[in-house]
Amino acid sequence: MSKIFAFSIRKDEEPYLKEWATAHPEVDVDYTDQLLTPETAKLARGADGVVVYQQLDYTPETLQALADLGITKMSLRNVGVDNIDMDKAKELGFEITNVPVYSPNAIAEHAAIQTARILRQTKRLDAKIAHGDLRWAPTIGREVRDQTVGVIGTGHIGRVYMQIMEGFGAKVIAYDVYKNPELDKKGYYVDSLDELYKQADVISLHVPAMDSNYHMINDETIAEMKDNAVLVNVSRGPLVDTAAVVRALDSGKLFGFVMDTYENEVGIFNEDWTGKDFPDKVLKDLIDRPNVLVTPHTAFYTTHAVRNMVVKAFDNNLALVEGQTPETPVEVK
Amino acid sequence: MSKIFAFSIRKDEEPYLKEWATAHPEVDVDYTDQLLTPETAKLARGADGVVVYQQLDYTPETLQALADLGITKMSLRNVGVDNIDMDKAKELGFEITNVPVYSPNAIAEHAAIQTARILRQTKRLDAKIAHGDLRWAPTIGREVRDQTVGVIGTGHIGRVYMQIMEGFGAKVIAYDVYKNPELDKKGYYVDSLDELYKQADVISLHVPAMDSNYHMINDETIAEMKDNAVLVNVSRGPLVDTAAVVRALDSGKLFGFVMDTYENEVGIFNEDWTGKDFPDKVLKDLIDRPNVLVTPHTAFYTTHAVRNMVVKAFDNNLALVEGQTPETPVEVK
Ligand SMILES: NC(=O)c1ccc[n+]([C@@H]2O[C@H](COP(=O)([O-])OP(=O)(O)OC[C@H]3O[C@@H](n4cnc5c(N)ncnc54)[C@H](O)[C@@H]3O)[C@@H](O)[C@H]2O)c1
Ligand SMILES: NC(=O)c1ccc[n+]([C@@H]2O[C@H](COP(=O)([O-])OP(=O)(O)OC[C@H]3O[C@@H](n4cnc5c(N)ncnc54)[C@H](O)[C@@H]3O)[C@@H](O)[C@H]2O)c1
Repeated sequence: MSKIFAFSIRKDEEPYLKEWATAHPEVDVDYTDQLLTPETAKLARGADGVVVYQQLDYTPETLQALADLGITKMSLRNVGVDNIDMDKAKELGFEITNVPVYSPNAIAEHAAIQTARILRQTKRLDAKIAHGDLRWAPTIGREVRDQTVGVIGTGHIGRVYMQIMEGFGAKVIAYDVYKNPELDKKGYYVDSLDELYKQADVISLHVPAMDSNYHMINDETIAEMKDNAVLVNVSRGPLVDTAAVVRALDSGKLFGFVMDTYENEVGIFNEDWTGKDFPDKVLKDLIDRPNVLVTPHTAFYTTHAVRNMVVKAFDNNLALVEGQTPETPVEVK
Repeated sequence: MSKIFAFSIRKDEEPYLKEWATAHPEVDVDYTDQLLTPETAKLARGADGVVVYQQLDYTPETLQALADLGITKMSLRNVGVDNIDMDKAKELGFEITNVPVYSPNAIAEHAAIQTARILRQTKRLDAKIAHGDLRWAPTIGREVRDQTVGVIGTGHIGRVYMQIMEGFGAKVIAYDVYKNPELDKKGYYVDSLDELYKQADVISLHVPAMDSNYHMINDETIAEMKDNAVLVNVSRGPLVDTAAVVRALDSGKLFGFVMDTYENEVGIFNEDWTGKDFPDKVLKDLIDRPNVLVTPHTAFYTTHAVRNMVVKAFDNNLALVEGQTPETPVEVK
């Protein structure tokens, strides 16, 4: 009987792990809520493969500890592999998988909801209601259907965001370095970012972060946008020059800002700062603004996404363990 | 030159009034921010018709004051005519118009945004973030696309709500006493409310309030619903037995509740209670709950709706003044 052991299983992951185990009675499944370290590796003793997910580094020592137990088949429940010591993994003959796509809709829905909230001024209205001011004026909404929505990047997530915005009745335009043939036929693409900035009331980023697009949203590109534009970044922090956005919020050029990713998020997001000195003044200021919606990289965090992360990682690991080709292998080099 | 005078024009209405006036150079347009009363009526002296909108009653005295100035053509910027003394209006020969449909999307978009927010637990997450807790778990979202959305009432607003939910990828089912032929052909309708309650994860009301559906949402109908259902009422307060909903929120039967209309809202909504004794304990409790989103009958309040209310009322009034048939006359009887 094959055995798979999973590390750092959260409460919200447990039901999906159990669902997978029930569907695979031929596999012995065990797990812990502890992170994988050189010390905890021994919990996996007897397993043929491990399923993992952590911000903590997979150091040479950690990988060696697994290899010492004869375990070299490792399946990540997330995308990123930056924290794996690949040289050591290669030396030890590791086979690794990840889950590159778990739910584009999780991120696209979040972006859409937050976009609509900014247009509707819900943060201002909710604050009024919370302290007993039940007057509607002057907190008036802009309808999504009246907006021209400019989508930068028409990959997995951007495309779903486009569909949601069209369901609201918005006019959607798009830009991508690679034109999706189907979208192209339907006439969504404008020819340049300049053109998109000029036409769009809402600008939403759905591209990866690269050297070439570092701070693509900056003083100059914001100046190209329409007055009262809404900016949405649920993709990667470095795409946006945060200081320039703050200036544009101060001047009133931008109507609002949706931010799920932040250029300085590492070490700040997914921590509890309650009662402590908040570590970032710019971030605190953004959180407090009535026309900014900050979330700490939680756009992905839905039951659908978590289920897929767990189920796909176990599927991958079982394939590795049984000597078959997993769906999404990671190149170990 | 015809002259139209408008009462109680708010700041957010002014731009649309000016837009209309510019488009109609042949009409003399004037206005005040004051309500129409027997005393202020004289401000309209010399006008051929008036454009109005207020919660205040149109009393016999008020109507008489207008008639004394020779003004009997009155165009409401809103729907409701309950506050007009119709006997007196008839006696004085008033011709009246209203604006029955100004923007179904305003209300449907609001319902959709709030539905998605409940599923996403944004109120809980936002509260965490506001006090510095940037951990994502355990505040996990449910994706809209995973829901079966049950729409009760497929009129102007219900239909737009259905389109938005489908844009998200949700499965939509519907119930109406009158089946829209087009929707029927596409297979949306279930045969009974019982069937809808049984299947739906989200239940959204888009019907008028009548004696026959008073408290249609009550302990019995809630018991028919799925566990963790979300209830949405942006239509009329009396449709929902609020006490039963509170019980279902307490027991955990309902996952959340969206409430833009409340059975006891008159005299409470659209007032400022800041620093005063809040007048309704049940309402205050609902406002404070993390899985309830209360708004004070603001679903309609968008720039698009306000523009239409102003422009359509002026169009109607001009038709009356010029002896033509207005688009939406009110029967004076
Ligand atoms: N907030 C979250 O929780 C979260 C979760 C997952 C992914 N993301 C981010 O969302 C973004 C989009 O992810 P995806 O899965 O849709 O990616 P994808 O690879 O499916 O699509 C990306 C698209 O961007 C295009 N592109 C690349 N560089 C471009 C450029 N300079 N200008 C215009 N277009 C360009 C590509 O051609 C492609 O169509 C990524 O930045 C990803 O890191 C965020
Ligand atoms: N919150 C707000 O700001 C706001 C603003 C405008 C309207 N509303 C409310 O929204 C609701 C819908 O408005 P609309 O413009 O779509 O109305 P509509 O007349 O266009 O549609 C109502 C639909 O409900 C159906 N219906 C009537 N009684 C029914 C019953 N007992 N069971 C099932 N279906 C029934 C009708 O056949 C019709 O299709 C109304 O209650 C209205 O008062 C709220």
